[in-house]
Amino acid sequence: MKKKGIDLVVVGSVALDSVATHSGSGKDILGGSVSYACTAAAFFTRPGMVGVVGDDFPRRYVGMLRKAGVDMAGLQQVRGKTFRWAGEYEEDMNNRRTISTELNVFADFRPEVPESYRSAPFVFLANISPDLQLHVLSQMRKPRFVAADTMDLWIKTAATDLRRVISSVDMILLNDSEAKLMTGEKNPMKAAAAVLKMGPKYVVVKKGEHGAILFARNSRFIVPAYPTEDVRDPTGAGDTFAGGLMGALASRGIINADAVKASLLAGTVLASFGVESFGIDRLATIKRRDILRRMDELRRIASFPPARGIPGGAGGK
Amino acid sequence: MKKKGIDLVVVGSVALDSVATHSGSGKDILGGSVSYACTAAAFFTRPGMVGVVGDDFPRRYVGMLRKAGVDMAGLQQVRGKTFRWAGEYEEDMNNRRTISTELNVFADFRPEVPESYRSAPFVFLANISPDLQLHVLSQMRKPRFVAADTMDLWIKTAATDLRRVISSVDMILLNDSEAKLMTGEKNPMKAAAAVLKMGPKYVVVKKGEHGAILFARNSRFIVPAYPTEDVRDPTGAGDTFAGGLMGALASRGIINADAVKASLLAGTVLASFGVESFGIDRLATIKRRDILRRMDELRRIASFPPARGIPGGAGGK
Repeated sequence: MKKKGIDLVVVGSVALDSVATHSGSGKDILGGSVSYACTAAAFFTRPGMVGVVGDDFPRRYVGMLRKAGVDMAGLQQVRGKTFRWAGEYEEDMNNRRTISTELNVFADFRPEVPESYRSAPFVFLANISPDLQLHVLSQMRKPRFVAADTMDLWIKTAATDLRRVISSVDMILLNDSEAKLMTGEKNPMKAAAAVLKMGPKYVVVKKGEHGAILFARNSRFIVPAYPTEDVRDPTGAGDTFAGGLMGALASRGIINADAVKASLLAGTVLASFGVESFGIDRLATIKRRDILRRMDELRRIASFPPARGIPGGAGGK
Repeated sequence: MKKKGIDLVVVGSVALDSVATHSGSGKDILGGSVSYACTAAAFFTRPGMVGVVGDDFPRRYVGMLRKAGVDMAGLQQVRGKTFRWAGEYEEDMNNRRTISTELNVFADFRPEVPESYRSAPFVFLANISPDLQLHVLSQMRKPRFVAADTMDLWIKTAATDLRRVISSVDMILLNDSEAKLMTGEKNPMKAAAAVLKMGPKYVVVKKGEHGAILFARNSRFIVPAYPTEDVRDPTGAGDTFAGGLMGALASRGIINADAVKASLLAGTVLASFGVESFGIDRLATIKRRDILRRMDELRRIASFPPARGIPGGAGGK
């Protein structure tokens, strides 16, 4: 079978996570931003991952990612141990505590984009340090659409590089506390507006279980999270969301605000599946039709009744 | 001018609040659940308030409520001091600290529903103790639709009476942490489902700045909060939301899930205006057209693009 070309390049971390939540725990689970993002994106497009693992990286994880439809040409395997993260969540899963972080081979990661990836039209710079995000971006020929994710650590320690990333991309994703931290604005709406002024066309403010808000030059759009009842492990939810969003966007011919909105719906549904298991186990079992079904359901439960239902509207008293 | 009859009876607290937030502070502001709820409801219907104040209650507050369109026949004025609450909010307004609570005349409040209110079709039992809510309900003839609000205090101290309230009403409103507390369920969706089993047709889970979720027997509906940039004082937001919701519902001929959904939109917009000032100051200045305009805007920013925007849909690749 002829191998399809890459539509979406994703760079980020590959990790072995040890996670404990109220519903269980797992050791050396496949994790990292690029693993989650690529697995989610692969439901809609052909993603290629750029990352690094050590010689201890389980072969079955390579198999899982490949089976999910992820191109692995950009995954470097080097001597040493894979990046490891350990953490535990409180019963209120919005609160988590990092137990340990071992960078290992990730400490010296210098992402190299394979030649076969360099003309890809879509790029997602998942959560890694801004200088590595810029290094990846510099290797791409002329991407049509670039998105970047980030985290509080980089806002605090690499603000200048991060500003450069934000001004270079079409879309930046960050959570509400990060938007406030970055801009000094207390109100999340004002914070998002301030980030938008830094250059990107789209700012996506992630609110975890409360969904996300898209800010564009002349419009806003609210997407609620799919109300899932069975959250087992929220690790990687933001990466899964972003990967699903970028995969859905890459699968489309046209990029505009409506396409981004529809893709946000895909991202939020992917994230809702992702949190139902540890690692990518749940994502590995669902089919595209499961995603489309849940997207339909979310669309339905978040849709307002016709405007005549408004008091004072045509059907009002 | 002939006085219109009462469509909606609201019982709750009337308070003089002293509040400090990052954007200012105020002393002896008109507050209390029934003040907020009635002011909001009055944009859509004719509410009558059942409450108690002391002889120190400022006459201008009576004037403000009356001017807003609230019937005051059910407001008892007795000797003594009005209920007072003092609190302050952190910069993150989700966190507040109560500085003092003086029940004063509220300690011996025995709500009496005026004869002119007893045939009203709609009843909102705003946040007071469940035994007072039941006492009010027992005085109503045959209301068409009854909703109740509550708080963590009653879940902890008056669980039996509260269960009786919940099983007697058509709709219960509570916030997500309260739903979890009441049911012992960790997941807010499971918690809401458990509350629904206690008897009401509708459970509204309030999530503050993140909006609300409606749970009915066979459907769910998510309403996001209106993304306001200028939150000055969130006190009373939940009461304003509920009052707006009940006022909008009372203004309609038909009660069904679509009517409740449209009314939730009204409630969330009323709350978004309410938090833009201390007390009911902002609500006292807006017009019905301001509300309808913001409802239209919220409807627009929370609406998904047509389903052909979905990857895999008719317009997908």
